[in-house]
Amino acid sequence: MTKILDCTLRDGGYYTNWDFNDNTVDAYIQAMNVLPIDYLELGYRNNPTKEYMGKFGYCPVSVLKHIRQNCTKKLDVMLNEKSTRPKDFSALLKPIVGLVDMIRIAIDPNNFDRAVVLAKAVKAMGFEVGFNVMYMSKWQTEYPELLTKLGMLDSFADLFCMVDSFGGVTPEDVTNIVKVVRDNTKCPIGFHGHNNLQLGLINTITAMKLNVEYVDATILGMGRGAGNLNMELLLTYLNAHEGMQVDFNVLGDVITAFTPLLEKHQWGTNLPYMLAGANRIPQKEVMDWVTNRVYSFNSIVRALENRKNNAVDNAQFPRLNVERKFDKVLVIGGGNNAVEHKEAIKEFIAQEKNIAIIFATARNAKAYQDITIPIYYILVGNEGRRLTGNVGESKFNGTCVLPPYPRTMGTEVPAYAEKNTVELSAVVFTDQYKDSVTTIALQLAMNLTDGGIFVIGYDGYPGNVLSEKEVSLTNENKTIFNAFKEARGEQLKSLTPSLYRDLEVVSVYQYI
Amino acid sequence: MTKILDCTLRDGGYYTNWDFNDNTVDAYIQAMNVLPIDYLELGYRNNPTKEYMGKFGYCPVSVLKHIRQNCTKKLDVMLNEKSTRPKDFSALLKPIVGLVDMIRIAIDPNNFDRAVVLAKAVKAMGFEVGFNVMYMSKWQTEYPELLTKLGMLDSFADLFCMVDSFGGVTPEDVTNIVKVVRDNTKCPIGFHGHNNLQLGLINTITAMKLNVEYVDATILGMGRGAGNLNMELLLTYLNAHEGMQVDFNVLGDVITAFTPLLEKHQWGTNLPYMLAGANRIPQKEVMDWVTNRVYSFNSIVRALENRKNNAVDNAQFPRLNVERKFDKVLVIGGGNNAVEHKEAIKEFIAQEKNIAIIFATARNAKAYQDITIPIYYILVGNEGRRLTGNVGESKFNGTCVLPPYPRTMGTEVPAYAEKNTVELSAVVFTDQYKDSVTTIALQLAMNLTDGGIFVIGYDGYPGNVLSEKEVSLTNENKTIFNAFKEARGEQLKSLTPSLYRDLEVVSVYQYI
Repeated sequence: MTKILDCTLRDGGYYTNWDFNDNTVDAYIQAMNVLPIDYLELGYRNNPTKEYMGKFGYCPVSVLKHIRQNCTKKLDVMLNEKSTRPKDFSALLKPIVGLVDMIRIAIDPNNFDRAVVLAKAVKAMGFEVGFNVMYMSKWQTEYPELLTKLGMLDSFADLFCMVDSFGGVTPEDVTNIVKVVRDNTKCPIGFHGHNNLQLGLINTITAMKLNVEYVDATILGMGRGAGNLNMELLLTYLNAHEGMQVDFNVLGDVITAFTPLLEKHQWGTNLPYMLAGANRIPQKEVMDWVTNRVYSFNSIVRALENRKNNAVDNAQFPRLNVERKFDKVLVIGGGNNAVEHKEAIKEFIAQEKNIAIIFATARNAKAYQDITIPIYYILVGNEGRRLTGNVGESKFNGTCVLPPYPRTMGTEVPAYAEKNTVELSAVVFTDQYKDSVTTIALQLAMNLTDGGIFVIGYDGYPGNVLSEKEVSLTNENKTIFNAFKEARGEQLKSLTPSLYRDLEVVSVYQYI
Repeated sequence: MTKILDCTLRDGGYYTNWDFNDNTVDAYIQAMNVLPIDYLELGYRNNPTKEYMGKFGYCPVSVLKHIRQNCTKKLDVMLNEKSTRPKDFSALLKPIVGLVDMIRIAIDPNNFDRAVVLAKAVKAMGFEVGFNVMYMSKWQTEYPELLTKLGMLDSFADLFCMVDSFGGVTPEDVTNIVKVVRDNTKCPIGFHGHNNLQLGLINTITAMKLNVEYVDATILGMGRGAGNLNMELLLTYLNAHEGMQVDFNVLGDVITAFTPLLEKHQWGTNLPYMLAGANRIPQKEVMDWVTNRVYSFNSIVRALENRKNNAVDNAQFPRLNVERKFDKVLVIGGGNNAVEHKEAIKEFIAQEKNIAIIFATARNAKAYQDITIPIYYILVGNEGRRLTGNVGESKFNGTCVLPPYPRTMGTEVPAYAEKNTVELSAVVFTDQYKDSVTTIALQLAMNLTDGGIFVIGYDGYPGNVLSEKEVSLTNENKTIFNAFKEARGEQLKSLTPSLYRDLEVVSVYQYI
């Protein structure tokens, strides 16, 4: 009979920084006690890490004790092989002897030999020990040595878990790989599937029909990137097809307990994760793009398509060549003050003999359609579409400027603008946020003038409560403005009102 | 080569009443023109229906003309066999000759013979004709005659599409059923999968490997209940595994166009749909429960579990037996005014010698914990849990009253209350909202007294903008209050302020 391992807290923690509130955890443990689940993987034991990890990123002894007292199922925690050596065990494992039953080790196939040493030390402390080895879809092609070494596990390991890291394996792949693994080791086999292609269930059922000893799933499929096989789906299927006893009211309770987290973090598959899964692109990066940053959906899809085609970028353009410098450059952001004060700004521009404007975003371009000085449009992400929406082919009369080649998220330039598009050679004034429209706009401004650089339409966000996206954009712009100050020796000047304290506001009205 | 049919507008219309705005439709058609999709199923042609159906529920000629002019792919619309006779064709089909290429007919297997007559008439008008036959998972067991009749299609039909109505078939089922169908007809075969068990992709791929001629999918899986196979998943898979050319930027565009609808309607699978799929319970009912009504998640799961176990209900209790009637009965709703005015209400109660109170919901029960007259608690849906939360085992001292047996959503009574639980024999004063707590409370009140019935805590919802749930509950209560008036010959009286005009507000303060 295949054992079922629930790793909701461990794998779901990628969305919550491994913090779950006590009510959620209590509801989880209560339900797990009743449901036909054999192991609970609670989180990681970790050496101190740079980035914040919450309760279940460390699984302190007090937490494990509390759960051990309240839980009737076997417990396990995970170690990252990469960051754990046997010398760490006095701190990481000795205090939890007797509290957890199994230690699973997350392993890059390249480090398999080192992992065997680590695992033997784990076993010697009295734990069951499991191998969670990544990239199963590449073992046969890129890591054939791994397979020949699996016999080393026979003498001591309790679990060799095959991890579908990319979420791209098919039932046929599962069948092939289980067979190869079986041929090479007597160690019990596990399967940990991801759900990028909605194949989590069928892959797991396929593995179970091949009599693997362990399968993993999580409540609501909560897990890194596209997430895992949904535990409720696995149990519903096994109830209907294999007569497994399931208390659906209890299952409903734990689903209810995790639903607010799903509503908040919105994990699950979508086109970017599907593309990543089908083409073996790591979850981590796609998850960063999808969840943390302001990349548009389309730019993620474009970047993934480039990756899939092994293209560093999908287009290359001539480099910017500055023949003649301007006296002044005005950078126009997306804030409403650029429209509010447009008459004054136009008067300011009209006074100047040798000025250029740069639209960091084309959002406000309509308000300045009637001016006839050199215009530059920054094209990052989906700005090409915005250019088409706000300016369009008939009114376009300027130069598009791209970040340096190759661009992480690929390149999209409207066809009518292709002849008038150049790319920067390099971004030199900052190492951060190199694909921000503001970074590119300011670098271009510095390339175009040795004189004054002004911005308008960088309004900042009012109010006490900012959205995550607003906070993120505010921090990004602050960092960029400070880098500008470092590079130029003076604060960047805003001609329109701004809440950014890192800008020096010098009212446009004093100049006209 | 299998043809791909996109039925986003037709099947997704179950969530939007078949209305999609022009921008969405234009973006859809533009993308479909570029993507490797062969047929677009745009909606239904329908005789006038009682319930509202929007644009794509009727597909008016003007709409089809517009799309025909802008679309390079084959088009089809669906007819419901059940509601369509050949005599309707002069209105439904004659005007669209030349505008659509195929007519698909949705068919209950019981009506197969009648459908053949209809389909031949369709074919005679020059259309391709497709059969969409429901309940494929039951054909071999419950409709074996259907299979023997499939030879009738050979002479004229262009498509026999197998519909996984419950979303419960597995790849093995697909393999078996395709084989049986092939053995019985030369007609091209199609497969229309639902995604309750996240098996949409693997079932469809399985069908394609068996060389079926057509498969269906929809953008973002938009479709009735748990929805369909996601078109973006199918195309991503076929691109990676079969080298199909896919423009992912265009695919991204159409995903973006439909994402606001997904955010609004939140289709997709979840535990209720999984249970329904795995146990062959029709989508329609579950979708009504999940989307339209105020049933809690847990009561849906309980109802489905009863259905799965072929139980009409999971528990039965003695019937209410009224030995002695009360002079007055007070029904307490969940509104805040029942707490606001509790001192006055308690004074009112104390004046009475022979009064009972009924908690329509236990929400306000805490405020009345100290009174010592007969108390009844209405248990509908998850009120059992609310009783435990607000009263609890130690303070419970009353009678629980259930709706008449059997209860649609099943029964949940806390263990400590089981001995003091009864059920109503019947609800007689109204035919509507028979599982509303207010209906049950008022029926109980009428059973308990021939004297005065009062309510408190039916506050109504203030403000100009009510949520859908508030509007729905308001309408429900209005209907119930009016039925009460019909039955008793006088308006129901509220002792606390209320926005319901169907209540007669008689201030509690005039009585004390």
